[in-house]
Amino acid sequence: MKKRIAVCPGSFDPITLGHVDLVRRAARLFDELIVAVAADAEKHHRFSLDERVEMVREACDDIADVTVEGFSGLLVEFCRRQGAAAIVKGIRTTADMPHELQMQAVNADLAPEIETVFLAASAQYAHMSSTMVKWLSDLGADVSGYVPAGVALRLKPGK
Amino acid sequence: MKKRIAVCPGSFDPITLGHVDLVRRAARLFDELIVAVAADAEKHHRFSLDERVEMVREACDDIADVTVEGFSGLLVEFCRRQGAAAIVKGIRTTADMPHELQMQAVNADLAPEIETVFLAASAQYAHMSSTMVKWLSDLGADVSGYVPAGVALRLKPGK
Amino acid sequence: MKKRIAVCPGSFDPITLGHVDLVRRAARLFDELIVAVAADAEKHHRFSLDERVEMVREACDDIADVTVEGFSGLLVEFCRRQGAAAIVKGIRTTADMPHELQMQAVNADLAPEIETVFLAASAQYAHMSSTMVKWLSDLGADVSGYVPAGVALRLKPGK
Amino acid sequence: MKKRIAVCPGSFDPITLGHVDLVRRAARLFDELIVAVAADAEKHHRFSLDERVEMVREACDDIADVTVEGFSGLLVEFCRRQGAAAIVKGIRTTADMPHELQMQAVNADLAPEIETVFLAASAQYAHMSSTMVKWLSDLGADVSGYVPAGVALRLKPGK
Amino acid sequence: MKKRIAVCPGSFDPITLGHVDLVRRAARLFDELIVAVAADAEKHHRFSLDERVEMVREACDDIADVTVEGFSGLLVEFCRRQGAAAIVKGIRTTADMPHELQMQAVNADLAPEIETVFLAASAQYAHMSSTMVKWLSDLGADVSGYVPAGVALRLKPGK
Amino acid sequence: MKKRIAVCPGSFDPITLGHVDLVRRAARLFDELIVAVAADAEKHHRFSLDERVEMVREACDDIADVTVEGFSGLLVEFCRRQGAAAIVKGIRTTADMPHELQMQAVNADLAPEIETVFLAASAQYAHMSSTMVKWLSDLGADVSGYVPAGVALRLKPGK
Repeated sequence: MKKRIAVCPGSFDPITLGHVDLVRRAARLFDELIVAVAADAEKHHRFSLDERVEMVREACDDIADVTVEGFSGLLVEFCRRQGAAAIVKGIRTTADMPHELQMQAVNADLAPEIETVFLAASAQYAHMSSTMVKWLSDLGADVSGYVPAGVALRLKPGK
Repeated sequence: MKKRIAVCPGSFDPITLGHVDLVRRAARLFDELIVAVAADAEKHHRFSLDERVEMVREACDDIADVTVEGFSGLLVEFCRRQGAAAIVKGIRTTADMPHELQMQAVNADLAPEIETVFLAASAQYAHMSSTMVKWLSDLGADVSGYVPAGVALRLKPGK
Repeated sequence: MKKRIAVCPGSFDPITLGHVDLVRRAARLFDELIVAVAADAEKHHRFSLDERVEMVREACDDIADVTVEGFSGLLVEFCRRQGAAAIVKGIRTTADMPHELQMQAVNADLAPEIETVFLAASAQYAHMSSTMVKWLSDLGADVSGYVPAGVALRLKPGK
Repeated sequence: MKKRIAVCPGSFDPITLGHVDLVRRAARLFDELIVAVAADAEKHHRFSLDERVEMVREACDDIADVTVEGFSGLLVEFCRRQGAAAIVKGIRTTADMPHELQMQAVNADLAPEIETVFLAASAQYAHMSSTMVKWLSDLGADVSGYVPAGVALRLKPGK
Repeated sequence: MKKRIAVCPGSFDPITLGHVDLVRRAARLFDELIVAVAADAEKHHRFSLDERVEMVREACDDIADVTVEGFSGLLVEFCRRQGAAAIVKGIRTTADMPHELQMQAVNADLAPEIETVFLAASAQYAHMSSTMVKWLSDLGADVSGYVPAGVALRLKPGK
Repeated sequence: MKKRIAVCPGSFDPITLGHVDLVRRAARLFDELIVAVAADAEKHHRFSLDERVEMVREACDDIADVTVEGFSGLLVEFCRRQGAAAIVKGIRTTADMPHELQMQAVNADLAPEIETVFLAASAQYAHMSSTMVKWLSDLGADVSGYVPAGVALRLKPGK
């Protein structure tokens, strides 16, 4: 049997419990899962790349066959360097699909040998996102039900 | 490494080139892919279960690590009997998602250990379906660009 | 203060736990909530109108300020006879909206004094429907997590 | 009977005739309707909070049982302070739903005792928004058919 | 200049005021507009093909450069026989698009020289359809605001 | 016969092969097609208006009956000055429709005599956009399959 590696990319600014659930489920489908934290130089992030990688590492520490790495540049080039056969993306609702199908089509153009596979978010996490968590936290809401403990500590209300 | 089996279910009434493309791509992601042809006793089909299985077998004959079987009853029970870790579904457009997410959620309730993974249809097949092929064929259109040769032979205009 | 009556219409063939949750939440917003079970003469139902009304009554028996009635004909005429100010509809996912917005617009044409209000289904029920329950039950699945106990008893696998 | 208070939140930058229609219709469903103008400190607004509150007050002046207030912080906390049982949101098209369902789910997490109810925009206002009004006005279009007279006066072409 | 002919296809079972509005607007864009009433042998219609053609003719009688014809078989073959450069389809809401884009792609495969052009329904007709009209009429509603006078006469409540 | 002029508006920052395909197809439907490059003063563009107009001219140079012009202000006012009967917009996926239907409705309010007609993007271009091209190019991807040769030359990786 062939060893199959998959990459689960994202900004993870910060990682949420929905992301952790996705990583846990995806990790069971492949021999190795690389969580790839995008530098996204063009975006403004709340946390630095190093902080984001560190928070993902802490949150996924107990999940077997998972490694965490930062990356910059084209996702498909990162996947090729890792020998990955698949990109794993989470789908929270139907509204995520137009953008995800567009990215999938572009990545299939650039690297036809790498498949994008989509997993649906678990129902309890479908309404949660990093953006929502930051917004709620800034408004003073308790977001400890949405993020790993280490992330909740790092998020301070009031920005 | 663990052997990973996936099931690709459908009615395949009849199999189209879009289905074949999906099977070919999915087969590369798992150690074994079982194309599961649903008896769907409650539906009216153009072709019998035996014919549908036979057409799928012919069409997927050259794809490594693929087997074809008919099934009836609950999909997740079939998956459990086969030891499958995943169900593979194709997504042609965003409009497929509401139904697919509903089925995914039900199957996750019934069998949380089995993941549903979605693959996007290749652009050239995104507008094609078994229903469309039958409708076009009945109206006298040439559907040989949409289905395997063996299927084109079996479809007769005018029903 | 004015007494406000709302009508929650549906086929309820059969009532699910998602419906019960909707009725319970809607009942808190109005002084009286009438669950209106549609005769829907043009549809084929699994259960008779009498059975459907009876199952809804049993399921909503403990919810204050709720009554249950069958109706035929135009929903807005039923609402007018009841003196209702609002129609309450549940939304499971975005995919429900096109049809619901169409019905809302028609009802607003026919009876501008009656408002349609939409409530989102609770996350745990968003994937459940009467159709799905019947389909699963016919395939032999245990649907007791989706319907009130009395309904589960009445649904027999194998149709 | 219980007195039922609802909150209709928004940026109202500026209020449009679509908003006024929504407020008028929502006001009939509750004993008191509070139009809650969000400070939204993180957004750039055309008008100050005071101006936005003032324009809403002028526009809703003739609607019975309506009060207007500015608020900052979490909407559900504002609702609790007001004793509100419901949040009222307008839906212009299906495309509004993904974001609205996400906000509804978050608010239901934070305050399960407060229901979000959705009302569909009237057909003549479904294509209008504050953003569109500002954009059209800046391009020199006559927006007096889209906003209350007081707002039209305050909007100056050319920003 | 080249004479440009377009075809506006449909079942028109029966024609509604939304259809008439579409025909009127489309007719201004082309030198000749052929309203093509589909025989749709596989569907059950309320009215015969002859009745449907007759109702369309009556309803479009005052619109310049419009002719009405029944057709069976593939739409693109009909278009070719008529020398048409375009197929005109009305879009009532976003929800119409997935099916319309699928048909467009199939027709572009079959006849790349014929373009499909979409026109949005006018706001006051966006919620109306032949199916809705028949359903409302059968329930006893007054549908004279939705259909031409001749159609209202032919629709009898109670089926 | 009447001379029919249509306007195909956009930012074209920069023009893609999907735009060129749309222009080529639209040009066959009208006697004259004016590609209207929006100044869009409120947006930040990669290329100046002059550069964008020049790239569109180069790319559409071989298409009969096409002219290219920059414009600022309201699109419908530009159309009126040109004597245009129609605005042509491309639709890549269903997800484009909510915004396009909103703009169509606004333009129909402002200028009822001008029709907006939608053409579906060809399948091979449905996932491509100016934004995607710039993003890919900045990440170092080869975008020569997505844009005219002159545009590829002007796009430099690394911004």
